[in-house]
Amino acid sequence: MALIPTYQDIEAAHRIVSQYAHHTPVLTSKSINEITGGNLFFKCENFQKVGAFKFRGACNAVFSLSEEEARKGVATHSSGNHAAALALAARMRGIAAHIVMPDNSPEIKKKAVAGNGAKITFCEPTLQARETTLAEIVAETGATEIHPYNNFHVIAGQGTAAKELIEDFGDFDIILAPVGGGGLLAGTALSAKYLLPQCKVIAAEPLGADDAFRSFQAKKIIPSVNPKTIADGLLTSLGERNFAIISVKVDDIVTVSEEKIVEAMRMIWERMKIIIEPSSAVPLAAILEGKINIQNKKTGIILSGGNLDLGRLPF
Amino acid sequence: MALIPTYQDIEAAHRIVSQYAHHTPVLTSKSINEITGGNLFFKCENFQKVGAFKFRGACNAVFSLSEEEARKGVATHSSGNHAAALALAARMRGIAAHIVMPDNSPEIKKKAVAGNGAKITFCEPTLQARETTLAEIVAETGATEIHPYNNFHVIAGQGTAAKELIEDFGDFDIILAPVGGGGLLAGTALSAKYLLPQCKVIAAEPLGADDAFRSFQAKKIIPSVNPKTIADGLLTSLGERNFAIISVKVDDIVTVSEEKIVEAMRMIWERMKIIIEPSSAVPLAAILEGKINIQNKKTGIILSGGNLDLGRLPF
Repeated sequence: MALIPTYQDIEAAHRIVSQYAHHTPVLTSKSINEITGGNLFFKCENFQKVGAFKFRGACNAVFSLSEEEARKGVATHSSGNHAAALALAARMRGIAAHIVMPDNSPEIKKKAVAGNGAKITFCEPTLQARETTLAEIVAETGATEIHPYNNFHVIAGQGTAAKELIEDFGDFDIILAPVGGGGLLAGTALSAKYLLPQCKVIAAEPLGADDAFRSFQAKKIIPSVNPKTIADGLLTSLGERNFAIISVKVDDIVTVSEEKIVEAMRMIWERMKIIIEPSSAVPLAAILEGKINIQNKKTGIILSGGNLDLGRLPF
Repeated sequence: MALIPTYQDIEAAHRIVSQYAHHTPVLTSKSINEITGGNLFFKCENFQKVGAFKFRGACNAVFSLSEEEARKGVATHSSGNHAAALALAARMRGIAAHIVMPDNSPEIKKKAVAGNGAKITFCEPTLQARETTLAEIVAETGATEIHPYNNFHVIAGQGTAAKELIEDFGDFDIILAPVGGGGLLAGTALSAKYLLPQCKVIAAEPLGADDAFRSFQAKKIIPSVNPKTIADGLLTSLGERNFAIISVKVDDIVTVSEEKIVEAMRMIWERMKIIIEPSSAVPLAAILEGKINIQNKKTGIILSGGNLDLGRLPF
């Protein structure tokens, strides 16, 4: 299989995803436009099934399996949203999902995974523990590993959010997404550049987990060391397939402070009356911090999800 | 002027309101339907301008004034949402708004009123202090008092939310609304009974502020004494005009515990990813508490607003 999904691959993904996922709404906010001087369109993946864009990629991966592969189930390690997404997609296809989760995952995410009937194995919250535990489960069950982001079908699936945004609202000058492992960003960049070659695609990343920023500058992958940010969906390091796409399709990656992430999150909660998780607030934080100039530009922002422990808010 | 708005009065209100207010979306939640066994349609007035249904009534009242009345401005006392709504409506018409607010109003509501250019006078948080202060301002300025709920045009304006809900989603068996002063409930009952005579209209009220429940039972107004509830929009006692409508048009009023209000609010936040204030959660709380049977009934719920201090959440 090719390394980079073509537009036909994203169209194929969209035919699958649109059967199972929500076509999420796009919201605008007069007051946030007044504050930023922008013309912002927020693609609300917080309203997606399982509360995050991750369902798109998981769904495409699960329904792209052959019958023979599907019978043995799927497996993954994930800090949360991908796990819930894969569990639901597997349940929809009627196959097993084996999920390795770090034991410090937010309660709401553990519940979402268990609620969808997946078999959960908890492990230490390190990449190594996650990978070792997963390898054991795959060896035992023959399940297909569906990586949370370093996966062809997952990337193509995540690209359907930007595809819908552009098909619904047209000619964007800029599209912004947060970046963690790079699944959403790679998919967004592919859709944006296929559909609107002139559109700039810019990623925003927490300064405390800035491996994508540094990798993009260095033109090679530089993994995170002890990343720390409130945006818990963005702690992971860039995947190889993701970097291969991002390094050629993305125009810029900028970093933002924790303070601005919280400010942006609160602004969206207060002004738009919708619940987003901290990761979703990172692109608006970059605008508020003056890292991205959106004056007189029609700008799309992917709000990645809305899952967080309401008992542990930063305000 | 007649005591009770006719359907023509509500249609006239809607012609005004639809020029200035949002036609708010209606959301459904598969998981809340599964939990409750219901078929629930949530009319999202939390997405209304100033974050609450109150803008509808204020808007109708302000734009129904004669030119001569309008020149002297409008005045009111309000614990928050009506104040912000009246301030914005007055600004849209280009006239002065004089607002009396209790000094313990939530910060977010004080900011919203000030942000819309109103002249604020703070007073003690008692009905008497509010009324006395307002009377002084009206005497001084000649402004027209726009009562938050005991007002013909306000009631007709509030009725436009249920009118939109029914026009957009048809044949409801039950429509639920919270009740405080009774503006939303009276307007909702009028629209529902004019458009769907068979539809039951049921109100939910916090047990700690149950004057509407007791008044409905006793068939006369019994004012609140020291009401106490997290649903701060529902602390006020029923107005006379409101009671006159509610006593003939509403099918039942039920009370709910504080615990269930918080549980319902959290359920809507977590499952629907939208921000509602505690008052909005009261009808769902009544369903969760088993006070209203919605099995096999198509049920509309007015979510009244989404304004609250994010720094003071009950979870």
